[in-house]
Amino acid sequence: MTLADGALLQRLQVLEDREAIRELIARYGPLADGGNAAGVAALWTENGRYEISGFGSATGHREIAALISGKTHQQLMSDGCAHILGPVSMKIDGDEAVAVGHSLVLRWAGDRFEVARVAANRWELVRTAQGWRVDLRKNALLTGEEAARALLSLPA
Amino acid sequence: MTLADGALLQRLQVLEDREAIRELIARYGPLADGGNAAGVAALWTENGRYEISGFGSATGHREIAALISGKTHQQLMSDGCAHILGPVSMKIDGDEAVAVGHSLVLRWAGDRFEVARVAANRWELVRTAQGWRVDLRKNALLTGEEAARALLSLPA
Amino acid sequence: MTLADGALLQRLQVLEDREAIRELIARYGPLADGGNAAGVAALWTENGRYEISGFGSATGHREIAALISGKTHQQLMSDGCAHILGPVSMKIDGDEAVAVGHSLVLRWAGDRFEVARVAANRWELVRTAQGWRVDLRKNALLTGEEAARALLSLPA
Repeated sequence: MTLADGALLQRLQVLEDREAIRELIARYGPLADGGNAAGVAALWTENGRYEISGFGSATGHREIAALISGKTHQQLMSDGCAHILGPVSMKIDGDEAVAVGHSLVLRWAGDRFEVARVAANRWELVRTAQGWRVDLRKNALLTGEEAARALLSLPA
Repeated sequence: MTLADGALLQRLQVLEDREAIRELIARYGPLADGGNAAGVAALWTENGRYEISGFGSATGHREIAALISGKTHQQLMSDGCAHILGPVSMKIDGDEAVAVGHSLVLRWAGDRFEVARVAANRWELVRTAQGWRVDLRKNALLTGEEAARALLSLPA
Repeated sequence: MTLADGALLQRLQVLEDREAIRELIARYGPLADGGNAAGVAALWTENGRYEISGFGSATGHREIAALISGKTHQQLMSDGCAHILGPVSMKIDGDEAVAVGHSLVLRWAGDRFEVARVAANRWELVRTAQGWRVDLRKNALLTGEEAARALLSLPA
C-alpha cells in the first residue's frame, strides 16, 4: 500500500467512526420507546454507566436494562412517549470519543402531548471489539442549573 | 483495480448510501413545511406508499402530493407548522434499507406553539436508478398503542 | 495517482464536506445553551451574519457573540433553555453550500417546559482556510408567514 492509500484509509476510517457513533446514539430513542431493554443496554459497554441527574444512575447491562423494563418507563410507554434526541456534536480521539447534544421526552397526557423532559447529554464512548459503545452517558434537565449546561461543552 | 481497492470502494459506498438516505429523509420536513407537494412526492418511488395511522394512506406520487396540497396540510401551513424529524437509525441490505425514527408536528396556536403530533416512523427504502427513494413510510401516533411502538424496531 | 483514485478522492471529499457542515451546525445548540459566546461566533465567518426575523440581525463575531452574552439569552439560560435543531438537508456547490432545517427553543417555565420558538432556518456556508463556516444564517418563526416557509427551500 502506498503512503497516499494510508492517508485515504485514515480519512475513510474517521467518517466510518463518526457514522457508527451517530448510529449508536440514534438507536437509543427507538429502542427505548420500543421497550427493547436488552437492545438499550447493549448500546453501553459491559460496565457502562448512565447517570440521570435527579433520578439516579445505572451501571452495567442489567441495571441499564432495568431502567427500560422498570415501572417508570413502562408507565411512560403505556401513556405514550417519545425519547427524541437532537443532533450530536462529536469529537473522536483514537479509541475514545465524546458527543454532546440535547434530548427531549414527549408524553401523551390523554388529550395532548406535553414536553416531559428537556435535557443536556454528554456521551463518552469507546471503541470495543464489537464497535463503538457508550461508556458513560450523563443526562441532566435544562432547568437553569449550571451543571446541566456544563454537560454540553465539547473538549477543544 | 486491486482487491484492497475493491474493499475500500465498498466501504465508501456504504457511507454514501447512508448519507443519501439521511439526506432523503431530512428533506421531508422542509419540503412539507415549504408546501412543495411535488418535491415531497418525489421522495417516494412511483408507486410508493405513505400510511398514516388513523388518517389514511396515499399511494403513488399524485396521492402523496395531494397530502401536501390538500386542505388539512394547507390549513396547518397557514396556521404555522413544523414537521421535525428526530435522528434515524438505519440498516441497509443491498438495494433495500429500513430506517426508523420519531417525528413531531408543532403548530402555532395563535398565541403559543403546541405539539400537535408525536409519531413513530418506519421508512422502507429502495435504491432506484435515480438514487434512494421511499417505498413505504408508516407513521403512527405515540399515544400508548403497541402498534405504534412496533414501528420503531429495526431489523436485526 | 490514477484517474480512478481521483474519482475516489472526490467522493471521499463530498462525504467529508457534508460531515463537516453537519458537525458545524450541530455545534450551535450545545454552544448556545452552554453560554459559549466566542464558540458560537466562531461558527461564522469573520463578517458572517445572523438574521433573526422580528428580532434583528448581527454581523461579525463581536455582534454574534453579543447575542449569547446579552441579556435576553442569559435570562433564557438562567430560566433553563434548549436550542434544538432538526436534521439539515444540504446542497454543496464547490466552496459554497446551503443547508435548510428547523430549530426549536424550549424554555423551562418554572413548572413545565414550553415551546418558546419554532423556526425555519437557511444556512449559507462557505469553505474557508479553517474549514466550513456559516456566512449567513436566516431564522424566522413558523407562525404562518410565507417568508418563513420560503427559507426552507433548497436550491435545485
